Amino acid sequence: MKRVLLTGASGFIGHAAIAPRQRAGFQVVAVGRRAPDAEDVEFIGADLLDRTALSEAVAAAGASHLLHFAWFVTPGKFWGSEQNLAWAATTLDLLRFFREAGGARAVLAGTCAEYTWQPGGTLREHQTPEHPASLYGVAKHATRMVAEKFAITSGMSLAWGRIFWVYGPREAAGRLVSDAIVALLDGQRFATSAGLQRRDFLHVSDVAEGFVRLLDSDVEGPVNIASGHGETVRSILERIAQAAGRDLSLIDFGAFATRSDEPMLIEGAVDRLRSEVGAPPGRPIETGLRETVEWWRSRGKK
Amino acid sequence: MKRVLLTGASGFIGHAAIAPRQRAGFQVVAVGRRAPDAEDVEFIGADLLDRTALSEAVAAAGASHLLHFAWFVTPGKFWGSEQNLAWAATTLDLLRFFREAGGARAVLAGTCAEYTWQPGGTLREHQTPEHPASLYGVAKHATRMVAEKFAITSGMSLAWGRIFWVYGPREAAGRLVSDAIVALLDGQRFATSAGLQRRDFLHVSDVAEGFVRLLDSDVEGPVNIASGHGETVRSILERIAQAAGRDLSLIDFGAFATRSDEPMLIEGAVDRLRSEVGAPPGRPIETGLRETVEWWRSRGKK
Repeated sequence: MKRVLLTGASGFIGHAAIAPRQRAGFQVVAVGRRAPDAEDVEFIGADLLDRTALSEAVAAAGASHLLHFAWFVTPGKFWGSEQNLAWAATTLDLLRFFREAGGARAVLAGTCAEYTWQPGGTLREHQTPEHPASLYGVAKHATRMVAEKFAITSGMSLAWGRIFWVYGPREAAGRLVSDAIVALLDGQRFATSAGLQRRDFLHVSDVAEGFVRLLDSDVEGPVNIASGHGETVRSILERIAQAAGRDLSLIDFGAFATRSDEPMLIEGAVDRLRSEVGAPPGRPIETGLRETVEWWRSRGKK
Repeated sequence: MKRVLLTGASGFIGHAAIAPRQRAGFQVVAVGRRAPDAEDVEFIGADLLDRTALSEAVAAAGASHLLHFAWFVTPGKFWGSEQNLAWAATTLDLLRFFREAGGARAVLAGTCAEYTWQPGGTLREHQTPEHPASLYGVAKHATRMVAEKFAITSGMSLAWGRIFWVYGPREAAGRLVSDAIVALLDGQRFATSAGLQRRDFLHVSDVAEGFVRLLDSDVEGPVNIASGHGETVRSILERIAQAAGRDLSLIDFGAFATRSDEPMLIEGAVDRLRSEVGAPPGRPIETGLRETVEWWRSRGKK
């Protein structure tokens, strides 16, 4: 029986990973402070930042596989937070305890912010320089280096999925897509930048599916979990307005200046994800956005 | 009053750093499991690997400065040990707690193993590629990256002293100089490699002095704490035999093969240490080795 220890199971991507994990024949053991809202999931309550509790929980889980999403990701705060140090430390603890407990295959969540973002373009594993500009990016980058070396020295298989822009049902407030949908469904004005920058957006279920495929594979090292296609922020918002049945004039493009250090294009190369991991392309952005708008509407938004 | 929180104070370099720290006008607060064998040092007993105990100890220390030496360095075991993950995690914890408690200036111990060792030569800060081959080197390298970025985002001053080969009184068994001295003073045969590789050796008191100067400076980033001069292992051992009054024939050069992945020369550029930090050259190697042999002799070796 394959058993996967899942962290961040009550979070945005972690929650979306439960169902496909179970379909793939895994028993899921969630470890964290909050039990996930899902069926047939074992749950071991533990504060991951408590080293002793974490050690005991990992030993109790007895997992062959590890899928680690938990990190400090509060919108607007995570880029420069000292909590990045705490989560880097905890991730190293977790990996060590997992290996001690006999774990064989680990997949950890990385980020496109590990790459240099200047001058932007298509970011490619093992090719685009890793030169993160933020503390968040540095902490993830540093954690990956230690994790990959530890995997080699300890004889464990390890991959590192790099997340780009994620949207979909259950997204927290404070992020572009969720805030825009909520505002537009409410008929409120939504202030934003000119929106000409292109970013790689992937639906949360497709991100989760990519991680599921990666965990089931024996692919090692960094793998972009992305759509492979940069979409302008403007077109994302226009599609949301359309799906919400609202007039485009509600969107105040140019209300905020575009940051001068933001490159015009950030998208992930998906060669590894498609050919090595075998993950299919996710749903088209228009389908995913319509679905997400419907989800919010069903939650009582107009 | 400048107060320095010192870790590793009962260790090889940490212990040597106490006296010069005090001379420089610092009150030393040692934090660790064992009280250092030194006078006028405050001691707060805490297992650094216990996050809660560490947090409390750092808050209680109320230090303006941090000098962090503690790490897992058991000879023969530290290169690939999983303990490197624990100490990387603990170092990030320590730095975070120190900053939370109002700390302003931190100096942490790095290693020449952060640099690529191929093809060898003179390793220079900000110039020689950082491409560590060992888990120990990767863990130190990764820790430095996060520490430096955290210092910038949190407004703290931070430097990173890279240690090369250290010798001197109180060195643990299992290392070249200490083992050779003990064997030769006992009149025992000492088996070694051909000894043609050149390494940068610095007396522990001079290493400690370099760290003291670095801590008192406002120099930031990586600084080699080295002699600047690679010495052959053969000449080190010949000098030990001479100081011990033993015949060279006791040394079995070539008993062990030289590892094929070991470069012939590893030495540190000391431009930053001399001109920016202002540290004087340490004692000549022959003086330092004679002193070290005398120390072992005074401990009851013949």
